[in-house]
Amino acid sequence: MSTYVLVHGAWHTGKELEPVATLIRAAGHEALTPTIRGNRPGDPRTIGLPEATQSIIDFLLENGLREIILVGHSYAGMIITGVADRVQDRIRRLVYWNAFVPNDGESVIDMVPPQYAELFNAIAAERGDGSVVLPFPIWREAFINDADLDTAERAYRALNPHPLRTLTDRIALRVNPSDMAIAKSYINCTEDTSLPHHYPWHPRLSQKLGLFRLVQLAGSHELCFSNPARLAHAILEAGRD
Amino acid sequence: MSTYVLVHGAWHTGKELEPVATLIRAAGHEALTPTIRGNRPGDPRTIGLPEATQSIIDFLLENGLREIILVGHSYAGMIITGVADRVQDRIRRLVYWNAFVPNDGESVIDMVPPQYAELFNAIAAERGDGSVVLPFPIWREAFINDADLDTAERAYRALNPHPLRTLTDRIALRVNPSDMAIAKSYINCTEDTSLPHHYPWHPRLSQKLGLFRLVQLAGSHELCFSNPARLAHAILEAGRD
Amino acid sequence: MSTYVLVHGAWHTGKELEPVATLIRAAGHEALTPTIRGNRPGDPRTIGLPEATQSIIDFLLENGLREIILVGHSYAGMIITGVADRVQDRIRRLVYWNAFVPNDGESVIDMVPPQYAELFNAIAAERGDGSVVLPFPIWREAFINDADLDTAERAYRALNPHPLRTLTDRIALRVNPSDMAIAKSYINCTEDTSLPHHYPWHPRLSQKLGLFRLVQLAGSHELCFSNPARLAHAILEAGRD
Repeated sequence: MSTYVLVHGAWHTGKELEPVATLIRAAGHEALTPTIRGNRPGDPRTIGLPEATQSIIDFLLENGLREIILVGHSYAGMIITGVADRVQDRIRRLVYWNAFVPNDGESVIDMVPPQYAELFNAIAAERGDGSVVLPFPIWREAFINDADLDTAERAYRALNPHPLRTLTDRIALRVNPSDMAIAKSYINCTEDTSLPHHYPWHPRLSQKLGLFRLVQLAGSHELCFSNPARLAHAILEAGRD
Repeated sequence: MSTYVLVHGAWHTGKELEPVATLIRAAGHEALTPTIRGNRPGDPRTIGLPEATQSIIDFLLENGLREIILVGHSYAGMIITGVADRVQDRIRRLVYWNAFVPNDGESVIDMVPPQYAELFNAIAAERGDGSVVLPFPIWREAFINDADLDTAERAYRALNPHPLRTLTDRIALRVNPSDMAIAKSYINCTEDTSLPHHYPWHPRLSQKLGLFRLVQLAGSHELCFSNPARLAHAILEAGRD
Repeated sequence: MSTYVLVHGAWHTGKELEPVATLIRAAGHEALTPTIRGNRPGDPRTIGLPEATQSIIDFLLENGLREIILVGHSYAGMIITGVADRVQDRIRRLVYWNAFVPNDGESVIDMVPPQYAELFNAIAAERGDGSVVLPFPIWREAFINDADLDTAERAYRALNPHPLRTLTDRIALRVNPSDMAIAKSYINCTEDTSLPHHYPWHPRLSQKLGLFRLVQLAGSHELCFSNPARLAHAILEAGRD
């Protein structure tokens, strides 16, 4: 029995990972789905990456969790890297699922194509509360390309505005991921075009882990909606010893 | 119910896409398989890209087709791009299936490795009627690598000589694909080596579409022969809203 | 009925390919699994690439084998290329399975990232008998990432120390693979990270074959342990005419 902590991506909460967690529990493990500060209902959308990261550290400490498999999706690659840099002794393995892998001093915005930075800045300027949202056409075509329209629309309605500062803040790390003395896996969904394939998640970002275990599977960036069972299976293959 | 118009690649006719069209019809849609001018029995093999493109525009107009999903295979990426530039109001979505994506002024020959250009010129010079054919070893190993020898030979016998000018003519576009205000999908068969993987269909050519939906599946360039059912399924995933 | 000769990679013997050979035989073919000189129990670990290659040529001659499908895994890409250069008339098709493809004058070490060269030299210096072994963490995460821990440990115990000189010797070829007048296939396991995906087996090395047939399938570098049936199926697709 292992303990899986699943950390959601931008615009999501832990709730969207519950179907995956349920399947991991059915395989005999513990699975927890905290929501990062800044994505909870009522949270200010002006918080930055340090507060977001601290909220997951607090979750681990308050629940006395140890020997965990810490899984991060997309933006949460920043979070789990920051958590590992602070409380490495509580983590058995890091699992990045189409997630950002930062070195010290890097932000999410540093790892995406420049047009995303422009888009996010323009949307945040229009909204004025510090948050960004994702336009539906980009969501439908580039994030959840493997689902039917009903699923894409239902999932879109579950999203919440995301604090832009968490995407522009540069991470402060004592140790870069490749030098962390901890097991690491990278799950790559092969139809994930949320980052374009000429500037991809894997191997461009995954290789920053140094030695890591690759698990690949068919699916888009939002496999948690389009096929939670396939995703749960991949997380178990990535998380086992 | 949607209307799918499936446009074949070089050396093919619409007939070779009939097994795929039959499966799309079985899913409740209309599916049509016109043959491009230059590939019909008796056609002169000296025609160029404008006449080839016009023949598909004529087909849409004569049949009063609207709201179509226009699918192009390989060479037909040139055709559907040219058609969309002229009668965009009739098209609901463009679907490129391992197809060329041209910008204004580009030809097929501009998008393939130089050795193909040399090969085509040599073969056309020898044939002397304006057409090129594909040598069987290239067909068997690089185009239909996922089929058995019987299927490869049977499919090869169905091919017809292709007008070289359609591959060397530069397309004239008012709007490049990335700027067309129309939905787009790209189907990528992951074992398609008709273009070598160090100079691939996707993402090298697909990224010229701007925002597009990626659908990937196992198979060679000639999945219409080796697995029409798998191809039909992918076309439906690519073509839905 | 065809004759398949399966040549193992570094640290292996023919015995580890027996489950695959059994499945190929069940499909109606002959399948043989010689062990390369230098990897047999009691062999000196100081031999080089010429002696290793000669041992497989001897095997073919002693057994009077002709019209063979010669399959090489990983390091054995060096072996089957060298064999084909010497006794091409006995070979119907070369099949590289995530294998090195050398041109005249190249060694294995020339085709891997520099950190492998450093690692191998350090390990060989420590062992002092001319051989290298693979550290378990690299084996588990980068070579057999698709298996469970029990399979990974069991397979690791089957490995034998490998002669370093066979990896540093430069091959002498009369004809480079792309110019060999012989059919060729390349099998690529898509989760094989024994070479990192930013410096991959395919298409970086496969393209040196010139015209070849690609067969891809899910799996790690050590699919012979994690899924021999899937591998046998791919070898049959790669080996048929």
